[in-house]
Amino acid sequence: FELVPADLFAGEHKQLPFLAKNTFGQIPVLEDGDLSLFARLAICAYVTEKFKEAGNDLIRHQSLKEAAEAKMWMEVESQKYHPAISPIIFELFAAPLQGKSPDQGIIDDNMEKLGKVVSVYEDKLSRTKYLAGDFYRLADLFHLSFTYYFMKTPCANLINERPHVKAWWEDISSRPAFQKVASDMNYNFS
Amino acid sequence: FELVPADLFAGEHKQLPFLAKNTFGQIPVLEDGDLSLFARLAICAYVTEKFKEAGNDLIRHQSLKEAAEAKMWMEVESQKYHPAISPIIFELFAAPLQGKSPDQGIIDDNMEKLGKVVSVYEDKLSRTKYLAGDFYRLADLFHLSFTYYFMKTPCANLINERPHVKAWWEDISSRPAFQKVASDMNYNFS
Repeated sequence: FELVPADLFAGEHKQLPFLAKNTFGQIPVLEDGDLSLFARLAICAYVTEKFKEAGNDLIRHQSLKEAAEAKMWMEVESQKYHPAISPIIFELFAAPLQGKSPDQGIIDDNMEKLGKVVSVYEDKLSRTKYLAGDFYRLADLFHLSFTYYFMKTPCANLINERPHVKAWWEDISSRPAFQKVASDMNYNFS
Repeated sequence: FELVPADLFAGEHKQLPFLAKNTFGQIPVLEDGDLSLFARLAICAYVTEKFKEAGNDLIRHQSLKEAAEAKMWMEVESQKYHPAISPIIFELFAAPLQGKSPDQGIIDDNMEKLGKVVSVYEDKLSRTKYLAGDFYRLADLFHLSFTYYFMKTPCANLINERPHVKAWWEDISSRPAFQKVASDMNYNFS
């Protein structure tokens, strides 16, 4: 791969040739041969499926029941966790880059929503090691990027005060593959 | 199965025993043996996978590329189409049941969002018969329930004025399986 820096706020990424192939003109996009994919979950599922022999089987298609439980927790991340944590990350990291102050009202509202989701996680993780069972799966992995930034802020208490969620976070964020990714996730830490 | 009428606005469904098994206390929930599933997409994917030999293969797992494209369009429905159409349906059908007038501002805002999504569909459906290719899949099916109500309102023009989307809608909504479901979808038509 080749890294091409682009100023997202100035819309520079919209000038990149590969984005013309994304029907909605948004990132992320993945090109692989003649396949052009947009949509976060679909891209991750494709990569996971394509390379399942080379590493962990993060989807576990072999078992209908396990696959269903894994998909269910992916949907929880997508429909409940992500919509609550992303505005918080936007206010704390992206707004300052645009010269704005974080909107505390937005942060508070979403911390309340996120707290409810994380309380459900605490209950589930007291019964299984990972969200969808006793194996690390795509449903866990999806939490990594936004939670990594979240844990750099005082908001981290929301996770640290729940022992099973805290242990789960320490487990998934210390995996060597994620450590490698995280070493490049260093923008705007104050 | 057994039909058990419940007043959603009065929260009667929350008293039903099976909902205690849904971690978030919400519908829909599916129980099948010792498997208890919540989350709309995960439930549909499970049923589709379990009965793929008995009917159409709506996921098409055999081909990595076809499966990826199918998942991508499921995600479009989930992240773009559904969030725009559902507030419109709520205002036009659910609000009156609660004795409220529809909020025209909410309808207008979401009609604008939905129009952008449907314009992308028009382009895609000018090139393939269904959203993810030339076969009917779960990505198409997901549109049925909310669009069925939508098409009973004056908002239907949004779809009728786009010839490829209109033809796609007439195709998927006339399938015998959906006709059977639609015969029970008759509440509050004014």
